[in-house]
Amino acid sequence: MSHKSPISNLFFFIFLLCLITLSAASKHHSRRPCHHLVFYFHDIIFNGHNAKNATSAIVGAPAWGNLTTLAGQNHFGNVVVFDDPITLDNNLHSPPVGRAQGFYFYDKKEIFTAWLGFSFVFNSTEHKGSLNFAGADPALEKTRDIWVIGGTGDFFMARGIATLSTDSFEGNDYFRLRTDIKLYECW
Amino acid sequence: MSHKSPISNLFFFIFLLCLITLSAASKHHSRRPCHHLVFYFHDIIFNGHNAKNATSAIVGAPAWGNLTTLAGQNHFGNVVVFDDPITLDNNLHSPPVGRAQGFYFYDKKEIFTAWLGFSFVFNSTEHKGSLNFAGADPALEKTRDIWVIGGTGDFFMARGIATLSTDSFEGNDYFRLRTDIKLYECW
Amino acid sequence: MSHKSPISNLFFFIFLLCLITLSAASKHHSRRPCHHLVFYFHDIIFNGHNAKNATSAIVGAPAWGNLTTLAGQNHFGNVVVFDDPITLDNNLHSPPVGRAQGFYFYDKKEIFTAWLGFSFVFNSTEHKGSLNFAGADPALEKTRDIWVIGGTGDFFMARGIATLSTDSFEGNDYFRLRTDIKLYECW
Repeated sequence: MSHKSPISNLFFFIFLLCLITLSAASKHHSRRPCHHLVFYFHDIIFNGHNAKNATSAIVGAPAWGNLTTLAGQNHFGNVVVFDDPITLDNNLHSPPVGRAQGFYFYDKKEIFTAWLGFSFVFNSTEHKGSLNFAGADPALEKTRDIWVIGGTGDFFMARGIATLSTDSFEGNDYFRLRTDIKLYECW
Repeated sequence: MSHKSPISNLFFFIFLLCLITLSAASKHHSRRPCHHLVFYFHDIIFNGHNAKNATSAIVGAPAWGNLTTLAGQNHFGNVVVFDDPITLDNNLHSPPVGRAQGFYFYDKKEIFTAWLGFSFVFNSTEHKGSLNFAGADPALEKTRDIWVIGGTGDFFMARGIATLSTDSFEGNDYFRLRTDIKLYECW
Repeated sequence: MSHKSPISNLFFFIFLLCLITLSAASKHHSRRPCHHLVFYFHDIIFNGHNAKNATSAIVGAPAWGNLTTLAGQNHFGNVVVFDDPITLDNNLHSPPVGRAQGFYFYDKKEIFTAWLGFSFVFNSTEHKGSLNFAGADPALEKTRDIWVIGGTGDFFMARGIATLSTDSFEGNDYFRLRTDIKLYECW
């Protein structure tokens, strides 16, 4: 009997080690986010009269459009470049913690849908570096998932999902997007 | 002799466990796809006369171009926004299983090459969610590999390769791309 | 005593195996790059008079701009499509090892910042395949990190960081970017 005991202990020890190893190996495949962040960004589109406050401008339009008014047919074909302030709450006048820089375009004639490619560029005491996003934005849905394709600095090699929701809008001139970022791969 | 047997059994068991662990750990580095999908998408470009059927429109052009005709020099500089139907076979009139939404532009004066950024947005009984793509498309080659940068929904955290081939085209007004998607990272 | 020895040997062997397994599992999470490459690419923007040499063209502009001159306010809103030669050293006339194909736009009124989406398309004896990039480029900073979102061919499933630095520029017509690529995920 005295011989059996060390072997069965060993067995248990090995089993434990292998479980730990397995869980370590598959850790980054968990569906629990390793980082969770919420930000707001604010877009004020140039309309010909608001040059001082505007944070974005139309830079592409279809044949039936122009560069100071969003086109008919749900703005299909309008391309907009933006440099928007990012805030921690939903107040446009809160101190910005970074800039959302990139472009979006409207891509459907029948309803509002957009496609976005942009970066969050952080330079605050809390966050340094950038997060990059791309994806389809079916803007009429309450929440829309786009893709976090990677990051730099504090967000080195990050990947995950950003859930957008339109927190507020005023006609065609202003909108505010809540961005709920869940990273599932963190280094 | 009776003592040796459990130990050598143990040995074998450990070896097996470690092999399994190793293979589990390196599984996502295999070159065998974890998901394989084939779709077709159909692009009908607006030419000034086909507003009803068009699924895409020119929204950017170089100084020597315009917004209803693709420019000379292999369309260099033309930017096109699209919302194209995705089908399971090569028939434009098959029931669409989703929409391909995004943009492409022609980027070489000497020959036809393009660059694409777009999403497949699925909303069928088979697939929910999106796949996002980016990459260079040397359109004259028989097959071209672009990059699957990530996905949402059913395609959460997916990465892989999409092999494009021009299945058909009619002048400048219509083309159909076969998209052979191989995902190598699946969650 | 003669019994203890094989068991403790076994212990050590197991421990070693598990360590190897663990390190294999977490290898791709090291901050040491698995691939390091340096390239230069050269952009000559079309200005109305250099059609023969130009490698890029303005294809989008804000309401206050046009397509042959970069706009005021730090070119905010100008969209440029490019097909630039890639060289191994900083000489524009060195034999190109590939083409940098994609687009960039200027996205801030107050200072020069850009956003880039492009691919390196290689077709040399050394490299076959492509690398895809996206990210914010605060062009006035000495070095800027953008994101390597993936690759094909030799760079299958690659991810990492590309550090850009402006190696040279001549007015608005020519610039040369040094691109220091560090891949942290290699298959």
